[in-house]
Amino acid sequence: MAAQIEIPARRGKATRLDAGQAIKITNTHGTQVVDFWAFVAGHLTEFVGMEHCRATWKRLFPVTGDHLYTNKRRALMTLEEDTSPGRHDTLMAPCDNERYGLLGCTEYHDNCRDNMHAGLAELGISVPYTPDSLNLFMNIPWQQDGSLSFDAALSKPGDYVVLRAQLDCIAVMSACPQDILDINSQKPVEAHFEILD
Amino acid sequence: MAAQIEIPARRGKATRLDAGQAIKITNTHGTQVVDFWAFVAGHLTEFVGMEHCRATWKRLFPVTGDHLYTNKRRALMTLEEDTSPGRHDTLMAPCDNERYGLLGCTEYHDNCRDNMHAGLAELGISVPYTPDSLNLFMNIPWQQDGSLSFDAALSKPGDYVVLRAQLDCIAVMSACPQDILDINSQKPVEAHFEILD
Repeated sequence: MAAQIEIPARRGKATRLDAGQAIKITNTHGTQVVDFWAFVAGHLTEFVGMEHCRATWKRLFPVTGDHLYTNKRRALMTLEEDTSPGRHDTLMAPCDNERYGLLGCTEYHDNCRDNMHAGLAELGISVPYTPDSLNLFMNIPWQQDGSLSFDAALSKPGDYVVLRAQLDCIAVMSACPQDILDINSQKPVEAHFEILD
Repeated sequence: MAAQIEIPARRGKATRLDAGQAIKITNTHGTQVVDFWAFVAGHLTEFVGMEHCRATWKRLFPVTGDHLYTNKRRALMTLEEDTSPGRHDTLMAPCDNERYGLLGCTEYHDNCRDNMHAGLAELGISVPYTPDSLNLFMNIPWQQDGSLSFDAALSKPGDYVVLRAQLDCIAVMSACPQDILDINSQKPVEAHFEILD
């Protein structure tokens, strides 16, 4: 059995995956959003883009069997399993310090953007941009009039997704530090991942 | 009266705007999608991001009075007027040659990504990335189950939007060359813009 690795509360982690390997990301407490990014290994200007995914999915969110498409329209990963209610957000930018400024914070706030870069830095990787993220377990309902809201996750403890790599890639995750809006039930906690062969 | 400048069918154009100036973008024939990008002048790593806009709008599309927010969460432009039915897409990546490959093309196809870079090049500007675009007049209906479709524009000839610059910026437009899906009624044509003081 593969080792469970913690994504500490409010922090980011990255890992390399060979083509054919998969990553299982577990919502340990059921309440936690995990922002997710994937880059093509060795070619970091190519990465998964939500705007590219939606154009091929013709849907606002992924379902089992969908590929994650890069900004070169290549299938980088496949959503192979999903035990959650399937509410994963593709619409909202990963949070950043400026976002918390708009929400009223006057001091630095942990955020998914910086977590992504910190996670990559642990692998010795630096990129000068922040792609949009697949926000796993993040419940952003839409209405027919186009309005959106930031709601609590619908997952139960232990819900997970499995994403299988089609190409060698770098996967990055952030246990979202959002504690002002409801998306993490205002209590950011840890999540876990493991690599599956 | 300001001069009308043509955005030729299937081509891109860019222009500089000083803070306080506005750009009026006209759907001359009513059927044409115009992909739109805006960069902070002199600081081209800061640009309007749809995922940042949606987070603040809490809506899938902009309405009059909304700002366009950058990846630093700053208001770069404001949607000041809109005579169209207000269907502007924020969900779909600008088309690129790879997209046309997925749609069955075996030779190069004009595309909004390359038009963006060509428009910028006319101003002597080069950027190594392609932000997501505000797809003016592009009609991508969503359903309550999250499904999306590529439909014909709902605008009438002469419909326009006015976007006013809050900061000095570079605005880029592409008269979308999509002639396979229905978004331009399968007949890409020219559009126009003018600068308003």
